[in-house]
Amino acid sequence: MITTRYELRVRYAETDQIGFAHHSRYLEWFECGRSDMMRRLGYPYGVMEEEGVLLPLVETGCHYHLPAKYDELLTIVTELRRIPRATIGLDYQILRSADKKLLADGFTVHAFVNKSGRAVKPSKKFLGIVEPYFK
Amino acid sequence: MITTRYELRVRYAETDQIGFAHHSRYLEWFECGRSDMMRRLGYPYGVMEEEGVLLPLVETGCHYHLPAKYDELLTIVTELRRIPRATIGLDYQILRSADKKLLADGFTVHAFVNKSGRAVKPSKKFLGIVEPYFK
Amino acid sequence: MITTRYELRVRYAETDQIGFAHHSRYLEWFECGRSDMMRRLGYPYGVMEEEGVLLPLVETGCHYHLPAKYDELLTIVTELRRIPRATIGLDYQILRSADKKLLADGFTVHAFVNKSGRAVKPSKKFLGIVEPYFK
Amino acid sequence: MITTRYELRVRYAETDQIGFAHHSRYLEWFECGRSDMMRRLGYPYGVMEEEGVLLPLVETGCHYHLPAKYDELLTIVTELRRIPRATIGLDYQILRSADKKLLADGFTVHAFVNKSGRAVKPSKKFLGIVEPYFK
Repeated sequence: MITTRYELRVRYAETDQIGFAHHSRYLEWFECGRSDMMRRLGYPYGVMEEEGVLLPLVETGCHYHLPAKYDELLTIVTELRRIPRATIGLDYQILRSADKKLLADGFTVHAFVNKSGRAVKPSKKFLGIVEPYFK
Repeated sequence: MITTRYELRVRYAETDQIGFAHHSRYLEWFECGRSDMMRRLGYPYGVMEEEGVLLPLVETGCHYHLPAKYDELLTIVTELRRIPRATIGLDYQILRSADKKLLADGFTVHAFVNKSGRAVKPSKKFLGIVEPYFK
Repeated sequence: MITTRYELRVRYAETDQIGFAHHSRYLEWFECGRSDMMRRLGYPYGVMEEEGVLLPLVETGCHYHLPAKYDELLTIVTELRRIPRATIGLDYQILRSADKKLLADGFTVHAFVNKSGRAVKPSKKFLGIVEPYFK
Repeated sequence: MITTRYELRVRYAETDQIGFAHHSRYLEWFECGRSDMMRRLGYPYGVMEEEGVLLPLVETGCHYHLPAKYDELLTIVTELRRIPRATIGLDYQILRSADKKLLADGFTVHAFVNKSGRAVKPSKKFLGIVEPYFK
């Protein structure tokens, strides 16, 4: 399993009139989490994309437990729990950094496709980076 | 069952560098769909909020089938399939208006809470509007 | 001069915790206005882009007079007041549709560039469409 | 003069189909910059708001010089150049952290209002914090 933690602060623009961060922004935060994981693995997603492999989202889901508020520091915990095959699945937890309370948890599933949108296998390069974490 | 249809056009700002609408915006579109349903039922969500009942999201999920592209007209189909109890669940389909292809489908589940965040029951007013559709 | 009007409704996701639409969304609305103008001129911006001419923003400005609120219908008035030369400038007014009150006004200036980011002249096709309005 | 620097990373969701960060997000980044300034001054904007003073935007402007790209680190330089009076004006520069190139610069002007939207003077508390920087 690979686990990374990324910290971000709730932006004013991310709040809505209830006074909490809008639920759609959590998907951006998940994305920040997995971008950070890729960067830490030494294979930034931008590089993978330049090399011709894209990871469009095919499914997502999220449970919201407690609201996130303006200016709070959040910790995005991103986990790769299984070796990617035809798809790659990631799990996320959003914690309030101050007290480690779980605000939300969710997941994303992505396909591997080439620039013409055709399904491809995960590259050997990527698997070579990821597989050692599962031994 | 209550079904409503709402049309919107993909904004340039909603695209990302793959060239498709970003997946987080689908949650905004679901929200446009349910706002429109409430408006058509004669009980706009803004009025419900003023009357002291909020509908924070507790869970969402979405499957993405085909990309939505800049300037395309989309139809958001919103469905209330069950009479709301402690929570209200809505289902959505996002169709490309031009050819009725299904681009995505998803759901949201909301709690009923008062302004202090306490769980409340759906109001008689709201149930009085909704229940006739289920007879 | 070319003037077009485009109507949209303030989304819940566009509000912030003050209870008004967030100021950054006005730039999206300006964009909706100019996309609509291009569509009405019979030359959608997506087509211009496919033909190799992009219009990146080089400058923008906005005055905010009155807040826009959730679910309100807004009218985006977009004006092309001068024939485009090296750049194209557009002016916008955001009105509350219900009472025509001016909520904000602003402008955008765009360069014409090709896909490698090089400055180009506006195409004959585009000028051929636009110039008759200035006679 | 007060100058603060805040670093952030361009999110994938912030890009558009040209492949650059969308211009509307720069206004969010300015907001991140001024939120950070307030926090560093020991008077977070959230606290000011709780104490009953809001800072709605009345004007903004931005020049875009070079594109910001996915995953790049940016430095938001925020400057308060004059003691606030009826309004407060802030200036911003957005630099690419890697080479300090100026990507954009802009400004925001905000009113001081109370919770009913009435114009108020900047509080003594706020001026007491800010004025020493101008001596």
